[in-house]
Amino acid sequence: MHNYASVGVYGATGYAGRELIGMLARHPRARIAFATSEGAAGSELRPRGGASAIRLVRAEDADASGCDVVFSCLPHGASARWVAHAASTGARAIDLSADLRVAGAGSPALASEAVYGLTEFARERVRGADVVANPGCYPTAALLALAPALRRGAVSGAVVINAASGVTGAGRNPKRELLFGEVAEDYRAYAVGNTHRHLAEMKAGAASLAGAEAELVFTPHLLPVKRGILETIYVPLAEAVGEAEARSWWTDDYAAERFVTVLDSGVPSLGDAVGTNQVVIGVAAVANAASPALLVVAAIDNLIKGAAGQAVQNFNVMSGWCEEEALPC
Amino acid sequence: MHNYASVGVYGATGYAGRELIGMLARHPRARIAFATSEGAAGSELRPRGGASAIRLVRAEDADASGCDVVFSCLPHGASARWVAHAASTGARAIDLSADLRVAGAGSPALASEAVYGLTEFARERVRGADVVANPGCYPTAALLALAPALRRGAVSGAVVINAASGVTGAGRNPKRELLFGEVAEDYRAYAVGNTHRHLAEMKAGAASLAGAEAELVFTPHLLPVKRGILETIYVPLAEAVGEAEARSWWTDDYAAERFVTVLDSGVPSLGDAVGTNQVVIGVAAVANAASPALLVVAAIDNLIKGAAGQAVQNFNVMSGWCEEEALPC
Amino acid sequence: MHNYASVGVYGATGYAGRELIGMLARHPRARIAFATSEGAAGSELRPRGGASAIRLVRAEDADASGCDVVFSCLPHGASARWVAHAASTGARAIDLSADLRVAGAGSPALASEAVYGLTEFARERVRGADVVANPGCYPTAALLALAPALRRGAVSGAVVINAASGVTGAGRNPKRELLFGEVAEDYRAYAVGNTHRHLAEMKAGAASLAGAEAELVFTPHLLPVKRGILETIYVPLAEAVGEAEARSWWTDDYAAERFVTVLDSGVPSLGDAVGTNQVVIGVAAVANAASPALLVVAAIDNLIKGAAGQAVQNFNVMSGWCEEEALPC
Amino acid sequence: MHNYASVGVYGATGYAGRELIGMLARHPRARIAFATSEGAAGSELRPRGGASAIRLVRAEDADASGCDVVFSCLPHGASARWVAHAASTGARAIDLSADLRVAGAGSPALASEAVYGLTEFARERVRGADVVANPGCYPTAALLALAPALRRGAVSGAVVINAASGVTGAGRNPKRELLFGEVAEDYRAYAVGNTHRHLAEMKAGAASLAGAEAELVFTPHLLPVKRGILETIYVPLAEAVGEAEARSWWTDDYAAERFVTVLDSGVPSLGDAVGTNQVVIGVAAVANAASPALLVVAAIDNLIKGAAGQAVQNFNVMSGWCEEEALPC
Repeated sequence: MHNYASVGVYGATGYAGRELIGMLARHPRARIAFATSEGAAGSELRPRGGASAIRLVRAEDADASGCDVVFSCLPHGASARWVAHAASTGARAIDLSADLRVAGAGSPALASEAVYGLTEFARERVRGADVVANPGCYPTAALLALAPALRRGAVSGAVVINAASGVTGAGRNPKRELLFGEVAEDYRAYAVGNTHRHLAEMKAGAASLAGAEAELVFTPHLLPVKRGILETIYVPLAEAVGEAEARSWWTDDYAAERFVTVLDSGVPSLGDAVGTNQVVIGVAAVANAASPALLVVAAIDNLIKGAAGQAVQNFNVMSGWCEEEALPC
Repeated sequence: MHNYASVGVYGATGYAGRELIGMLARHPRARIAFATSEGAAGSELRPRGGASAIRLVRAEDADASGCDVVFSCLPHGASARWVAHAASTGARAIDLSADLRVAGAGSPALASEAVYGLTEFARERVRGADVVANPGCYPTAALLALAPALRRGAVSGAVVINAASGVTGAGRNPKRELLFGEVAEDYRAYAVGNTHRHLAEMKAGAASLAGAEAELVFTPHLLPVKRGILETIYVPLAEAVGEAEARSWWTDDYAAERFVTVLDSGVPSLGDAVGTNQVVIGVAAVANAASPALLVVAAIDNLIKGAAGQAVQNFNVMSGWCEEEALPC
Repeated sequence: MHNYASVGVYGATGYAGRELIGMLARHPRARIAFATSEGAAGSELRPRGGASAIRLVRAEDADASGCDVVFSCLPHGASARWVAHAASTGARAIDLSADLRVAGAGSPALASEAVYGLTEFARERVRGADVVANPGCYPTAALLALAPALRRGAVSGAVVINAASGVTGAGRNPKRELLFGEVAEDYRAYAVGNTHRHLAEMKAGAASLAGAEAELVFTPHLLPVKRGILETIYVPLAEAVGEAEARSWWTDDYAAERFVTVLDSGVPSLGDAVGTNQVVIGVAAVANAASPALLVVAAIDNLIKGAAGQAVQNFNVMSGWCEEEALPC
Repeated sequence: MHNYASVGVYGATGYAGRELIGMLARHPRARIAFATSEGAAGSELRPRGGASAIRLVRAEDADASGCDVVFSCLPHGASARWVAHAASTGARAIDLSADLRVAGAGSPALASEAVYGLTEFARERVRGADVVANPGCYPTAALLALAPALRRGAVSGAVVINAASGVTGAGRNPKRELLFGEVAEDYRAYAVGNTHRHLAEMKAGAASLAGAEAELVFTPHLLPVKRGILETIYVPLAEAVGEAEARSWWTDDYAAERFVTVLDSGVPSLGDAVGTNQVVIGVAAVANAASPALLVVAAIDNLIKGAAGQAVQNFNVMSGWCEEEALPC
């Protein structure tokens, strides 16, 4: 354990990259050695909060070898290569892209080596990892919401996950369908019919928690808000259970977790989690129905717990520091 | 059949009431005899589009006896009384509140007499009705979305309905949780655990379509938009069916319907329906799952097809006129 | 005067183009002969309201010669060429771009021939025009708001125009600064320091109304809304005048105008004009200040009175029809 | 100077009150002794960021005598009484209401004693004050934006201030005109004609800076955003000055200020200030106009620098601590 770490960031100008730079700039133990951007190399990035501006360089011109930890916020498909490069120089790496999350994706060799870093479930393995695959935003919320039921083998049947995300989840590259004129006063489902890329990641995580395959039906939606994910999850149960007892599964499992809040009653709104590294979870019994089931609602900030915040959480764990360092709680 | 009708509107200053007044003011065959408001009696209501202003009166001061048809946009609980009063004067009535929709609710005698006016399913009975219970916004979208599967007996298991509505669905009375400062950049589920008032209405309608009880799990959400409802519905099937064949159930059933649009592919967004009297429906097969299921998405404008528009549609049917008269398509 | 007209539209897929296509599709006397798009040629455009879909063609493949009137919604710089082409085939033309509005801009020959079509001020000249330069959105609101004071020679000193526009005013081409993630919860001035392209158009119009140069300071802002322009205008006066007398200048001048609404008291909000072809104007005296001045607030829908609606208004005038035909009032 | 202070907050559940409680809960030198609420007394307030919940009490039941500093976020008219009460127990007080800002308002005796706490202009007097009148949100931005020009006697003629504020500026009490359904997609001016309550406060501040009366014309607008104020100010000059020289007035005057950012070029957007205690200022020369003038744009977060943040800034100054303590920069 060192008292500080030198860090580099590939892809610093997207929404997650800027959030990460802001956190690292405020982190009392991190010193930013480089930050890259293809489009904005040569210009300066000014983190919120008055920290010094950072000169952006091209990835080719960044020296990973002097870094303790390198983060990549590059797009899916473009990331694994630079993570591999950083790893080859001896730096440890945290990849925020999907490239290394599921075996078989991205760079196969690296993917098999990478630790899937949903911090609450993988703390020990993250601690010693050389490469961490930082989880996707939707799977982070879904797996934290479902784990207590899955671990208990309580789920029977198709779990129906309806998720809604703010637009920063779709990135900062200009696309017509993300214009204010298109998104405001609108709302839509996408990847309908269980075809979203995150499904495989969710299923792998769920299988690992349950010790068996789980049936998941996942439908994401685009919300006219900037940040945040809310997932409303129908959880069919093998047998009926009272709401209080069901809720105790979550409160028991997460009693020691600093970044998981289980509500005593009711369910969270998006705003309960936005701006924080928390996942906020509410559990309700389903009334007026023949089949026993729970309704679980989970909220996160897609750019914090769903991306940069969890990356910093993993960085803190890897460095042996207090897990909360620099994280908005 | 007459060439024109004299109409009255109880509760003209809420969101649905104003929408209705606007439509009736543009309706070539309607003449507004009175419009009531408790809070604004004595002032004038100016419909969009340059029609003459209408002087608001108190309900007590409105003369229903001279009207052919009276509409009530009064709140649930306050409406049935005035519908009964209007009926007693010989006027026909369309009640937009929930008071008469489900047997046992509101005024029992009147409820048993009222025709549940989901126009596409009850056209003949609406034509001769003295009192029409205009459907709720959520049930309108859900029942039109589910009918083709329910009628075919194809559904097996719990139907999971996730719905999201713009804030005008919650009315125009000032409440803290509806302030812009609370709703913007937020999103939340409510009536979680299958406890929403509209559930009974949906179940009654579904049972009537299926000829048997259907298991429905309904979770509404509040969207940071002004208008529109989008429902994302997981429909478990008794046996697998191809997407094209499944879609044909909807296209066949609704081929002759002017206000139901079934998409050839993909699913609707909220904006596809807002501003129109359409329900827009998309149907997708659920991939990557063990159990056969469909994902059906339906969009309506909550104030038009979900309230005032369907009321005018019923008014047109009751009057023997073209069903589309004055309706935005 | 004919009973109907065959029309063509260059640039049909931007925000103004789609609004125009929608109006023309509903226009009882217009028949759309062609609609062009560079990016979407070959696909279909479906106007709101159930009209038949229109197959988009490339501008090169459109036959203007068979049209009575051709509209161009092409971008500034790209428009004049196609307007000239249409004119050469004998069609009359309405150009919604800035190319022909100010002498010296765009195509000099055509610009000198074109009639500046702020309908309320140029009705007679529009009637006989072969080419109409449809006014810009900001100048439309500003000139209609200022005309009564300018015509009376009542203005003395710098007129300070603060305008705020919804994002559709910036077009539908993807740009990062127009993404929902950038615009929502933000608000900003642009072209600060009196440098906006529309200034010359406003000054030319104001000089024409006043019979003398007027000093205008114009600062536009980008609002986080989809549609609408609100202009808040400080009008310094040569001598003090009571509010009621001042307001009578506007009510007198616009008494016969169908698309100008002068409020009896108070000032309009954006929503008073959105969805209509109206300019809504409020006039207030400035209290608590040494210098006599008025505060004039004007609201329009930037895509209707500020673009497509005024184009249809001009089309109606050119065709000798009722000016209101197909226009939302 | 003490190492910590015991503080109390009257009116802790409005938007400014909650923001203040959050800052004080994170303040390393503050200990919250009480927080009051009329409507929510008895319930708990949970500050963002995981601090312990605070039990709300009624103002009558709060013991100010044990506090070093008491803040009041009570509404205008209701505040002065409790500030006077706290002062009578020996506590120092910071009043966020308008009650004590302008001589003659609220409680005359207390108002004449209170120090008007626009920190950057009154640091020395704030340090020793027993009662501080915390400035209004609009005057804070306007006075910081205008001071360099006013101090230099450079202004000649009517200063035209167009301001736009997010809805939290209007408070958290339910009013119809603040509903999401009314505010979204709308924008409007209010207190038109120079009639806003903040005008007297601005004029008093401007006179104090200029050493002479200044003519101000102030028009506030309601923006469809949650937070932030942007003011676009037309500043007529006695004589012409180059943009660079003009900007140097601001950079020189504010060189040592931690919470004033003067941009090297361009003007701020709302988002540049939201979430921080900064006022961000841009200065531009006005081109294309006969009269010499500047355009100054200033942005603040209305709840931070415009309310709770400046209150904490004053609290830090009064306590002899680092002025930035606990403030988001």
